[in-house]
This record gives sequence, structure tokens and C-alpha cells, in this order.
Amino acid sequence: MTSLDDIAGKASSGILYGIGVGPGHPRYLTLRAAGLIKSVDVLAYFAKKGRPGNARTIVTPLVEVTQVQLRLEYPLTTELPASHPDYQKQIHEFYEESALTISDQLGEGRSVGLLSEGDPFFYGSFMHMWHRLCENHEVEVIPGVTGMSGCWTRANTPITWGDDILRVLPGTLPEDKLTQQLQQADACVIMKVGRNLGKVRRAIAKAGLTQRAIYVERGMMEGEIIMPVSELEKETGPYFAMVLIPGKGRRL
Amino acid sequence: MTSLDDIAGKASSGILYGIGVGPGHPRYLTLRAAGLIKSVDVLAYFAKKGRPGNARTIVTPLVEVTQVQLRLEYPLTTELPASHPDYQKQIHEFYEESALTISDQLGEGRSVGLLSEGDPFFYGSFMHMWHRLCENHEVEVIPGVTGMSGCWTRANTPITWGDDILRVLPGTLPEDKLTQQLQQADACVIMKVGRNLGKVRRAIAKAGLTQRAIYVERGMMEGEIIMPVSELEKETGPYFAMVLIPGKGRRL
Repeated sequence: MTSLDDIAGKASSGILYGIGVGPGHPRYLTLRAAGLIKSVDVLAYFAKKGRPGNARTIVTPLVEVTQVQLRLEYPLTTELPASHPDYQKQIHEFYEESALTISDQLGEGRSVGLLSEGDPFFYGSFMHMWHRLCENHEVEVIPGVTGMSGCWTRANTPITWGDDILRVLPGTLPEDKLTQQLQQADACVIMKVGRNLGKVRRAIAKAGLTQRAIYVERGMMEGEIIMPVSELEKETGPYFAMVLIPGKGRRL
Repeated sequence: MTSLDDIAGKASSGILYGIGVGPGHPRYLTLRAAGLIKSVDVLAYFAKKGRPGNARTIVTPLVEVTQVQLRLEYPLTTELPASHPDYQKQIHEFYEESALTISDQLGEGRSVGLLSEGDPFFYGSFMHMWHRLCENHEVEVIPGVTGMSGCWTRANTPITWGDDILRVLPGTLPEDKLTQQLQQADACVIMKVGRNLGKVRRAIAKAGLTQRAIYVERGMMEGEIIMPVSELEKETGPYFAMVLIPGKGRRL
């Protein structure tokens, strides 16, 4: 039998690692992610002002107090909608600066592990660093368990059976488009529910899916709430909120 | 710093563990999955006739030669289409018997870990045991990195950006339905491509997406092939084949 450390391997100098940290509990880190978190020269992570950073919080049990860390702090979060030009300009500049900072570290021969909630290539902020750095640096992406897998596991419901089509819908979509998508759906996951919860609930109701829909807030994290959408009364939730509509496909 | 073994934990008697083993390489097992594989009393897995079983193969480096294993062998695989009544009857009986076998083990106080490729609640064969056993037995599901995450990681492409909608489509769908789904898509993953590859290629062409589509065969496993769909010439692929159509959403 091979040891977990041998399977996981270690970081090599000058490489950027995009590390998926999974849905919210350290036990769902992959062996590769765990091995890299323990061995990278620089552990980098994004965080909102005044917050410890969600991805960083998940990996806390693996981090040595002496490990070099690079906190990349968003200049703004929900002060402006993501569609606002000022938001886009400020975030763009922030990503440009962050990429330069990481590039400098890599150029000095250090390995850098950039943490990403869930899976890095699935709506991950890591992607904004990846497309700036992948041409001039070696990059390894470590896939992770997605937040939605974590949520349907906690809600104790299979999401897709047989030939079910799964749709993953951002809750930021306009209400009409959301409703239309839901009407055609076998199985659905609605992400980014947060401040869109009222709209999302209306779209689900219009599509006739309220009785099948499950609300998951902070799935797998402290303060987790799981309940039927039919029993929800509030109009907003936190950033980590999702709605699941499990499929009803073939059972054998 | 906490040890990996402490984070992972161990199996407890009489519990059924549905263990997601990830996309195909043992380094993408979660800590929890690895800890359970090493500690369950009975390691159970599905396999096709004459094959070692894909999920079982993935975890080989973690298995002790002395560990008790339970091979659950499918009575048939591709001899009949999944829609055929005889297929459904035989598979139904096989799942019934398998559930009884597992239930007996649990009833005798043993912990049973049933391996599942990818994530157990995402098109997983584990679900057919879960819905038979979850009422009378304690069950813990361990989410895993999905096969599709493994494939887009290997293809080195983010799958969804910004407000992209992701659709996961079974390649078993009729050609018209596939085409229609693809025409409306931001980002797509087509699973179960295998013997449906010819049809899938035609649907992609009709939807005008051939130039964006990436074919991944046996992603992350021995014999991996990754290539643009535009360069494909064959009409069938193996069971583990997928097509990815990455989204083009907001980049900041």
C-alpha cells in the first residue's frame, strides 16, 4: 500500500498551482490539494475586505504558522453590481495587479499555490489568474469537489438519474430567462442565489417547481441551513446559497 | 497542523459509505475517501464481466491485499440497449440482489464502502443501492471530483465564466433533442458519448459548435486522448468519452 503523502506528491519550484479546495470541509480536499498546500513556497488566496477568505478558512488545519502566505484582497465586493463599469474596471485592475504579484514570485523560482473554492475551472476566480499567467508560466490545475456536489450530498439527494439533463443556472439571470430555463429542466442547480433569492423563488414558482426545490445555505459550513423552498420566507440569502431541483430520471 | 489521517477519519461499524473516487487518478481522491477505503471492513465495487472495475482500479494503491472485498458483477453491459425491457429487468434484479448482499454485511455490524466513479450522487450507480438501503441503514455519502471536472482540467480549459449556464447532456438523447439543447447552450458537457459519438458529432455540427468542441477519451486514465472535435474521424468511442464545449462568459 502506498502512503497518502506519496500519492499526493509535492510542489515544484516556479510552478503555479490552482488548487481546488472543495465544497467547504477539509476532509473533502483531494490528496493532491493537501500535499500541495503543505508544500508550496507561497500559499495565495483571494479574500474580501475584513474577511479571512473562504478558501483559506477551509484549509486552515493544513497550514503551518510559519508558511508564507499571500492575501489578495478584493477592492470591492457587493458595493456595486457586477455589471457596473466601475466594478468591472476596479476588479480588472485588481486581477492585473494580483497576476503581476504572483508572476514575480514564480519568476523568483518559488512555487505558488492559489486556493480556489470548489473546482478551479468551474466559475472559479482562479480562472482570472490562469488566463493571464498560463502562457508564460507552468500551471497545474487541481480539480476539486464542487460546491454543488457538497450541497446535494448534504441535502441527501441524488441530483441526476439515467438520462436526466442537468442545468446549472446563475441566480443572477433575469427572472424571465430563469423561469424559461426552469420550465424546460430535468434537474437544476441554481448558483449565486444570495441577494437574488426573491427573484429565484418567483421563477421557481412560475415554473411549477416549488415542491421539488431544496434550499441550501452555507452547505457543509458553519451555520448550514437546508430546507424546502416551499417553507422559505426570506427574500435574500448569503453568498453561499444554492437551490437544488433533483431530477426524476430512470431508476432501476 | 493536523495530520491527514486525523482529518480523514475512519469507518464505523454498520455504516454504508458511498465513496466517490473521483475522475480517475488516486491523487484526486478526497482525504475522507482515502481514509474510508483504508478502514472499511468490506470494500465493495461494481464491475463488468471480465473487467477489474474502473472505480476499483482507481483506488488500487490504497488497498491492502488482505482487505475483504465484495465484487458486484453486472449481468450484462452493452449486449442490450438501456431502454430494452430485458436489460431493465436483469439490471433491476442485479441491483436488488446486490442491495441484499450489502444489507447482510451491514446487519452483521460490518462497515461497507461502496466505490463510485466521480461523485456518487451525479449519475452514480451507487444511487441504485442508496435508494434501496437508506431507509434501514445509516449511510454516509462522500462527494467526489466528477469525471467532467477531471476532463476539463486535462483539456486545460475553464468550462464556465461569469453568468454562463452549464448544461450536462447525456449522449444517449435523440439527435434532435441534443441539437436543440446545444443550439441554446452557453457551455456544455456531453456525457456517455461512447457508441453515440457519430450522433453527437452530427448534433454539434448542426448547432454550429464544432469549432468550439473538445473530445476527451479516457480523461486522466491510461490511453487518454484529447483532441478538437473538428479533427475527429471516428463514429464510436469507449464508455469513458466526453465532449466539452467551454463557455465564453465574462472575463475581468
